[in-house]
Amino acid sequence: MKMGKKTGEQTFQFANPPVIIATGTVAGPFEGQGPLAEEFDLVLGDLHNGENSFERAERSMLVQACRLALDHASRGSAEVDLFLAGDLLNQIISSSFTAATLSIPYLGIYGACSTVAEGLTLASMILDGGFAGAILVATSSHNATAERQYRYPTEYGGQRRPYQQWTVTGAAAALLGYTGHGPRVTAATVGKVVDMGCKDPLNLGAAMAPAAAETIACHFQDTGWDPDSFDLILTGDLGEIGFKLCRELLAEKDIHLGENFSDCGLLIYDREKQDVHAGASGCATAGLVAFGRLFRQFQRGELTRVLLVATGALHSPTSFLQGENIPCIAHAVRIEA
Amino acid sequence: MKMGKKTGEQTFQFANPPVIIATGTVAGPFEGQGPLAEEFDLVLGDLHNGENSFERAERSMLVQACRLALDHASRGSAEVDLFLAGDLLNQIISSSFTAATLSIPYLGIYGACSTVAEGLTLASMILDGGFAGAILVATSSHNATAERQYRYPTEYGGQRRPYQQWTVTGAAAALLGYTGHGPRVTAATVGKVVDMGCKDPLNLGAAMAPAAAETIACHFQDTGWDPDSFDLILTGDLGEIGFKLCRELLAEKDIHLGENFSDCGLLIYDREKQDVHAGASGCATAGLVAFGRLFRQFQRGELTRVLLVATGALHSPTSFLQGENIPCIAHAVRIEA
Repeated sequence: MKMGKKTGEQTFQFANPPVIIATGTVAGPFEGQGPLAEEFDLVLGDLHNGENSFERAERSMLVQACRLALDHASRGSAEVDLFLAGDLLNQIISSSFTAATLSIPYLGIYGACSTVAEGLTLASMILDGGFAGAILVATSSHNATAERQYRYPTEYGGQRRPYQQWTVTGAAAALLGYTGHGPRVTAATVGKVVDMGCKDPLNLGAAMAPAAAETIACHFQDTGWDPDSFDLILTGDLGEIGFKLCRELLAEKDIHLGENFSDCGLLIYDREKQDVHAGASGCATAGLVAFGRLFRQFQRGELTRVLLVATGALHSPTSFLQGENIPCIAHAVRIEA
Repeated sequence: MKMGKKTGEQTFQFANPPVIIATGTVAGPFEGQGPLAEEFDLVLGDLHNGENSFERAERSMLVQACRLALDHASRGSAEVDLFLAGDLLNQIISSSFTAATLSIPYLGIYGACSTVAEGLTLASMILDGGFAGAILVATSSHNATAERQYRYPTEYGGQRRPYQQWTVTGAAAALLGYTGHGPRVTAATVGKVVDMGCKDPLNLGAAMAPAAAETIACHFQDTGWDPDSFDLILTGDLGEIGFKLCRELLAEKDIHLGENFSDCGLLIYDREKQDVHAGASGCATAGLVAFGRLFRQFQRGELTRVLLVATGALHSPTSFLQGENIPCIAHAVRIEA
């Protein structure tokens, strides 16, 4: 049997590329007013989702997204070998409590907003390695839980800076299979942590841009592919500031990205009508775009080759308050029809 | 080429069992007064390790443990394909900042005190799947960082309850290879999250015991092995209360563990002389025992087959304060000479 392998410095290629069989997406009410609303399975009426805390609301969305993905694949939890999930909350409680509800063998992961790509990478390695037939990958974020943990409770009504991004309320899950019909994960580039000295936890797009640029450049170098190989190269949640920076950093490496370069953080909201400043952020940003919009575009035959480069800022409020820099990472996943 | 596979419900068997080539262990000063002191590479003189915060001290230990493992294998960072690490601190900052220092492609994991087994499991799948030649797995905990995050700052001097455990200060790393000399990871059982309704974050051993019992029973059922197949069956950090409970829960399933059953939480300290109450806890507990004592016992030919069952409590201070239960998990890794 043909085996997957490492190619170049940081890229892994899959011999039997795992299939994204089905997805489930749940979006918050504000995200449901954005341009991608039609691409989500479920849009919530309010931020509480019938629960008595925002944290419970977040995990209930994550459970819903996972169940939607399973339902769409006509599978039960017992038919899934592993559950790989992570989120922004301390000790990734959204994911762990969801794992308790689903009762699928569980491995928690943490990559901040890069989680969806980390999950797809690990799931693809495990599936291609022959260890599993089906793996559920999921992530979530919630505006009210993330804002009060990282910055201020939203009820405080703090003034937001123009370069800040808006944490997405949403949850996204995908069922990957060793066999099946759907887009396939053909390669993944695992990022190194990049620390360029950024210290402002309100300007995470700028902090993450160098990590995204490094990973994109590495993917091209490792594989011999170039920007024209893709219909779409999509960073995770760099937002307006980080997205421009990433393009500039790549141009300095003589990698010139064209119209096929975009950022999930610029797609979720209508920035003319929705006052989100620099765009969207949070684990659900790349999650909703990948498992909502991209998956459906692949199903409709509108996409052939996409490079999803989810980015994460790996600081904590403690590390920030202790004067540390914000280390960042980006993982790239190549998805093909 | 022969491929690894899933066996039974939750167990994965490796066709070309990955090798633990070398390890690195760093223990705190209090752990250096315990019975395993001689099994650690480095014992710190104080809790600060030359740094100006406990959090920086923790990550400096983790960097040291990783460098020791690499040195013992005569490898540089550039010869390692992936770094898998996790710890207890919010957003696993110890691991992510260590990844920034090491500059190895990094995937963050979170399993609380089960992290060492989660890391060994994922690394073994990736290596056996043919995706990598060498993977560094690491974890850490620090008494002062964990206590102030989960309970009270240690300077507060709060009275500890008799069933509480003492968070270990330490860091442990292992370099796993596709080839090489050393003990091998031959199988792994990935746990499901178990929630038995425990709510007391000071009695985590009791909360984790059912998860450990479930995973041990599952490993036996999936593989056909039994307690007598092993020289040693070692739970992670159940401590005195949880260890007794785990034995009782298994006896109810008609699985009777004998003298070859022990717990890392009962090995690190001399409970006659060191006032740690119910034993040791924290990610470094199973890490130090596995990569310190067990690894050396394998090297000395004293062990042939060990089942390491690292356990984790997946709550957060937020989930506890919101009245939630404490969901727990245990992952088992079979290590053979």
